[in-house]
Amino acid sequence: MNYDLNNLPKRTEKPRQYGFTMAMDKGLSLREVEDFIETSGPYTDIVKLGWATSFVTPNLKEKIKLYKEADIPVYFGGTLFEAFIVRNQFDDYRKTIDKYGLEYAEVSDGSIELDHDIKCDFINKLSDQVTVLSEVGSKDDQKIIPPYKWITLMQAELDAGSWKVIGEARESGNVGLFRSSGEVRSGLVEEILTKIPFEKIIWEAPQKAQQVWFIKLLGANVNLGNIAPNEVISLETIRLGLRGDTFTHFIGEDAAIIGK
Amino acid sequence: MNYDLNNLPKRTEKPRQYGFTMAMDKGLSLREVEDFIETSGPYTDIVKLGWATSFVTPNLKEKIKLYKEADIPVYFGGTLFEAFIVRNQFDDYRKTIDKYGLEYAEVSDGSIELDHDIKCDFINKLSDQVTVLSEVGSKDDQKIIPPYKWITLMQAELDAGSWKVIGEARESGNVGLFRSSGEVRSGLVEEILTKIPFEKIIWEAPQKAQQVWFIKLLGANVNLGNIAPNEVISLETIRLGLRGDTFTHFIGEDAAIIGK
Amino acid sequence: MNYDLNNLPKRTEKPRQYGFTMAMDKGLSLREVEDFIETSGPYTDIVKLGWATSFVTPNLKEKIKLYKEADIPVYFGGTLFEAFIVRNQFDDYRKTIDKYGLEYAEVSDGSIELDHDIKCDFINKLSDQVTVLSEVGSKDDQKIIPPYKWITLMQAELDAGSWKVIGEARESGNVGLFRSSGEVRSGLVEEILTKIPFEKIIWEAPQKAQQVWFIKLLGANVNLGNIAPNEVISLETIRLGLRGDTFTHFIGEDAAIIGK
Repeated sequence: MNYDLNNLPKRTEKPRQYGFTMAMDKGLSLREVEDFIETSGPYTDIVKLGWATSFVTPNLKEKIKLYKEADIPVYFGGTLFEAFIVRNQFDDYRKTIDKYGLEYAEVSDGSIELDHDIKCDFINKLSDQVTVLSEVGSKDDQKIIPPYKWITLMQAELDAGSWKVIGEARESGNVGLFRSSGEVRSGLVEEILTKIPFEKIIWEAPQKAQQVWFIKLLGANVNLGNIAPNEVISLETIRLGLRGDTFTHFIGEDAAIIGK
Repeated sequence: MNYDLNNLPKRTEKPRQYGFTMAMDKGLSLREVEDFIETSGPYTDIVKLGWATSFVTPNLKEKIKLYKEADIPVYFGGTLFEAFIVRNQFDDYRKTIDKYGLEYAEVSDGSIELDHDIKCDFINKLSDQVTVLSEVGSKDDQKIIPPYKWITLMQAELDAGSWKVIGEARESGNVGLFRSSGEVRSGLVEEILTKIPFEKIIWEAPQKAQQVWFIKLLGANVNLGNIAPNEVISLETIRLGLRGDTFTHFIGEDAAIIGK
Repeated sequence: MNYDLNNLPKRTEKPRQYGFTMAMDKGLSLREVEDFIETSGPYTDIVKLGWATSFVTPNLKEKIKLYKEADIPVYFGGTLFEAFIVRNQFDDYRKTIDKYGLEYAEVSDGSIELDHDIKCDFINKLSDQVTVLSEVGSKDDQKIIPPYKWITLMQAELDAGSWKVIGEARESGNVGLFRSSGEVRSGLVEEILTKIPFEKIIWEAPQKAQQVWFIKLLGANVNLGNIAPNEVISLETIRLGLRGDTFTHFIGEDAAIIGK
């Protein structure tokens, strides 16, 4: 860090098993990737190329190379997996992953109806090839999944070979873990955590209020995902209690009263 | 594209008469223009320098040159036309267009009250000099124009020499075609389309929900405008049914059910 | 400017005592700083490194150097001052300012409870070292400060050595001067201005509607702060009456009626 501040929450360091940040690149240019790595490389643990943006983004090989050189793994968004699956092109998906030299992949069913045994089978197959992240939760705001179901699904996917499971929120943060207003479904999160270890879950939290909520509940080193590249620095300050939103959370309300 | 996906909607190719995307540059630096062209050049058919940002943007000539070299036409936002008109400087406006070597211009009356015959006269005069886009709809959210009036105005402007007409929505997408909430005035759009050919209209749709709405109604190759440069990649995936929002629209709901 | 438009509001020029724009850098890369200076250098009078982003931003010295070479002063956001104070590290804060060669500093109490005499004492001490900006208003939306109190606080801070006082709004513009909806507390602003000279106040106005509101009330040359780097160009057009929002404000409604 650039100067010394006492009494900060201790952050994990790279390579992180928890306390990590998954950022979403939804079409950065090569130079923008370099800029992102310059400012946020130390705080970014993995990058998702959002949904199927990798299909239309020029210079994809070069982009992946830049991230690789910075030791930041890259993977295709889950919607791309689904786009291959509904077209009966799973083998093509596996080849595409290899063609781009990726070491991670996401299995999700946010836009499709996928039998859960079949989903776990995909996880299992892919986990022989790469490290798998799998996502629970629908992009459809009409599909409310009860807490016990989230737990069953997450556990089955971990058992099938997922390295971590992701709680779905979309880029915009208004479905899955969140109400349509963007508010966190807090009872759901607390119940999930009674059964699934918190380091095994990446919470999608694209909006600042959501990031703050998870950090207040689960601490500086909660795994958060779908972070916009230009918000990673901000998130790091929120984790450290150095933005207004979490300023008194770590030092305590009393410490913040001076001379009164 | 970077890999093969079967059964995608067919997109038109450059130079496009329809299915095109008008992006709005509201003050990009030269390097940012280069980055934008790198990622989104193939999907961007024309660039508007938003409202009067061209007045204060440094390096304007160089910026226009970059777009020209990438075969992307550039034009000044309609508010600039209006700024010249209300100052009785129409001749200066024509000279400014020539000074910067532009081949397109916009005629609008979003911020002024302009007699429609006079507006059509401006369109007619400018169409001798450049290709004219003209905009229908007010920036004032109090001015509700009924559907038959939209149609009469659009037809008169096409007759006067407009290449295409633009449905006004502002950068923020909350007036004209849209309610103040950002919701599309759907009856209005459908009625317009009974009379004006859809390739003749560019729908301003800065917000994702609006883009989705138009693509679901009018297909992958609807003309959309006022797209933020860093959202052009996203828009292209929405056109192709490769983002959650239109995922099942093109392949059908049934195709998205697997093993259930 | 790039071409001639008659009858524009007269803008002050650099170095500005009023009519100035404070932009907030919340983690730009070095190249992004260069881009920002290219497009917006002439319209940016001072840059705040938002809250404690300077703690985690790599290449901080180089970033400050770029701004310095462009004659744009830089200072640390007030939350960083508070972070040092609550840790009893005021001397370290002074040294950090010197280490980075900064000539401005902000004293605030947005996230802490700070006795006002002690706050004025900090202002006084720092004003021997650098030019001080001090901020009035809480980041806590539950703390409503009545107008007479805003005036008393602002006057005391100016008397203690503040160069200008800042009206707090946060980056998101929903506390302090603003209701939680983002609407301006207009009675408050008008009452403050009966006592404190308008050139002494920087109004935080991150949202466009707020910028428009202040420009309509106080003219093209009101001091505005917390402007996002990529919105400085837009703000300049709003100041000049060249965006829809203030289009008729400077030229008058009648001038905008043509041929009717």
